[in-house]
Amino acid sequence: MKVTCTQENLSRALSIASQAVGTDTTLPVLANVLLQTENGRLKLSATDLETGISVLIGGKVEAEGTVTVPAKLLAEYVRSLSTENVKLESKENKLHLKAGSYTASLNGIDPDEFPLIPKIKDKEICVVDAQSFATGVERTAFAAASDESRPELAGVYITLGKNSITMAATDSYRLAESVVEGVEMKASKQQSVIVPAKTLAELTHIIGEESNGKLKISLSENQMMFQYNDASLVTRLVEGQFPDYKAIIPDSFQTEAGFKRDELLQNIKVTGLFSREGANDIRFEFNLPAKETSLYAASSQVGKNSSKLKGKLKGETSQSVFNYRYLIDGLAGIKSEEVRFDTNGSSGPGVLRPSGSKEYTYVVMPIKQ
Amino acid sequence: MKVTCTQENLSRALSIASQAVGTDTTLPVLANVLLQTENGRLKLSATDLETGISVLIGGKVEAEGTVTVPAKLLAEYVRSLSTENVKLESKENKLHLKAGSYTASLNGIDPDEFPLIPKIKDKEICVVDAQSFATGVERTAFAAASDESRPELAGVYITLGKNSITMAATDSYRLAESVVEGVEMKASKQQSVIVPAKTLAELTHIIGEESNGKLKISLSENQMMFQYNDASLVTRLVEGQFPDYKAIIPDSFQTEAGFKRDELLQNIKVTGLFSREGANDIRFEFNLPAKETSLYAASSQVGKNSSKLKGKLKGETSQSVFNYRYLIDGLAGIKSEEVRFDTNGSSGPGVLRPSGSKEYTYVVMPIKQ
Repeated sequence: MKVTCTQENLSRALSIASQAVGTDTTLPVLANVLLQTENGRLKLSATDLETGISVLIGGKVEAEGTVTVPAKLLAEYVRSLSTENVKLESKENKLHLKAGSYTASLNGIDPDEFPLIPKIKDKEICVVDAQSFATGVERTAFAAASDESRPELAGVYITLGKNSITMAATDSYRLAESVVEGVEMKASKQQSVIVPAKTLAELTHIIGEESNGKLKISLSENQMMFQYNDASLVTRLVEGQFPDYKAIIPDSFQTEAGFKRDELLQNIKVTGLFSREGANDIRFEFNLPAKETSLYAASSQVGKNSSKLKGKLKGETSQSVFNYRYLIDGLAGIKSEEVRFDTNGSSGPGVLRPSGSKEYTYVVMPIKQ
Repeated sequence: MKVTCTQENLSRALSIASQAVGTDTTLPVLANVLLQTENGRLKLSATDLETGISVLIGGKVEAEGTVTVPAKLLAEYVRSLSTENVKLESKENKLHLKAGSYTASLNGIDPDEFPLIPKIKDKEICVVDAQSFATGVERTAFAAASDESRPELAGVYITLGKNSITMAATDSYRLAESVVEGVEMKASKQQSVIVPAKTLAELTHIIGEESNGKLKISLSENQMMFQYNDASLVTRLVEGQFPDYKAIIPDSFQTEAGFKRDELLQNIKVTGLFSREGANDIRFEFNLPAKETSLYAASSQVGKNSSKLKGKLKGETSQSVFNYRYLIDGLAGIKSEEVRFDTNGSSGPGVLRPSGSKEYTYVVMPIKQ
């Protein structure tokens, strides 16, 4: 292999591919990035066996070939360079680099040891605005279970509908659902799959924060592929049955409340400082005659705090106790000025939503006293 | 105690005093901040028994008194508030707070258990520009030993001279010395003391990054006091003899080199990626006939890198091996565009300095091959 490419392209591609690098040290080659020439371009790939990421970049290919070297070292090396071009040449499992006044040689591993990243040959089944998809992921993936005891709960349940994609995740204490509209669907029937939450987080890094491109999604029996510009991510799907989460979302409430989002968030954060460690419990008292909502927390060690919050109340006077950290997580997904917080007393779930919209729904179970 | 003060003043004072809060959990009161009324103002104090910080703020004092409550909780609580004023009232070792719609009560500890923070009664012995002093600390304190096996090396050696303050610190692998000019000295004779490096780091946080005020320094037999605006920090002095560090600074060199600071730093960082783990060794080759400096590093695991650096060379062709991390530390203290890096071959120390100045001197021992 003998290739010249720009430092900027190579650095960007390495930072994208590095996302998939495994932390499993039993197979050293998983810490490496695979570089290979392909149709006059340079392809960089990395995988942790669950997810594979590949990026294609332009360059001047003088000789075909392939080599695999430690991904983090190469990424840090190339990022540190301030030269315009980088020359790469592989020889006997080593990668030789030249850039300006720098000359390096990186020890590699035989590319034959690098696992094959599966490809999905079928044409994409839908196209969606990449930024909208990333927002959907950010609003839901955090609510997935962080352990793998129930693998289906460590994933995000994605339903590819006619004009929309619905994502849902739950760790059984709270549930987040986000609906992404404006989807160009090419498949004839609705399909649902479970994608590891970790993989989707990697995808949002690839998309970045200021994208205005499109994301293409393809599907095979066990795998899903996301394509964004020159990068593609293939992930295995999680087997198993996702819980019938729609049944958990209440459609009627004992008390309906509307608040300024930032005020509610501040009250929750401040009151939460006085919650009991581990329980993180704060109490909401929706007082309809007084047209006032009180938040209260107390712990025998720390002390206590109460605050009063203005807002629109409907329904009945009631009390609910919630884990304040879960509420903060849910509010992070809401950017609208006004939010609704509808509850069902001391034993029913509460629901956070942006005012006047059902594009985001966050259900949180109360702490029973 | 019954006091009303602004959220802004109280929050700032808490963030300053919290610096001194101890991490030693055997004496719970050290995690607390002491609030007391003093001459119509509110005084906040914290200590870890080595350093004590006090801050005085204005407020409306309606009743005298004193109380001690967890510093971090109170600081976080007050910081989170967006109200203009905070009312504080102490009752039976509890602190009651009212701010806007918030009402809190914090559990405290009997103020009698709070250790006395010593005061230095004597008038200050010198006055110095606070920002210049902080810069001197930043340039030296990092080079102090991080363990306490030789307590004098965990401190910064401060010499209060006629018109200047000289600070020096060494962990025996490298030595940093900074000279702060423009000091208004009131004492008649030069004095040297050793101050814990950790304490000086706290002091730089108090001074902040955009100060244009003055720092007053007072001294007693075992303690030093720094006063900056309404804050004062008292620290114990480290006993013991600081090494005769001036003897370590070479006054002649085998090779004298001048580089662009940023270029040298980049070459060191990039080459350092290929140094051996633990040793962090990179080799400098000063080639006078070729008017060129090469940097080289290799490790059997990773690979190797060499780079060529332009600069002005004088003296003899020579080679030196250094820990690249130490060089990065030293360059961080130099902001000038050009630096000098003067060395003494494979066994003598190297010296980094801003070009044309002796206000900062950084000596680093070579790694013998």
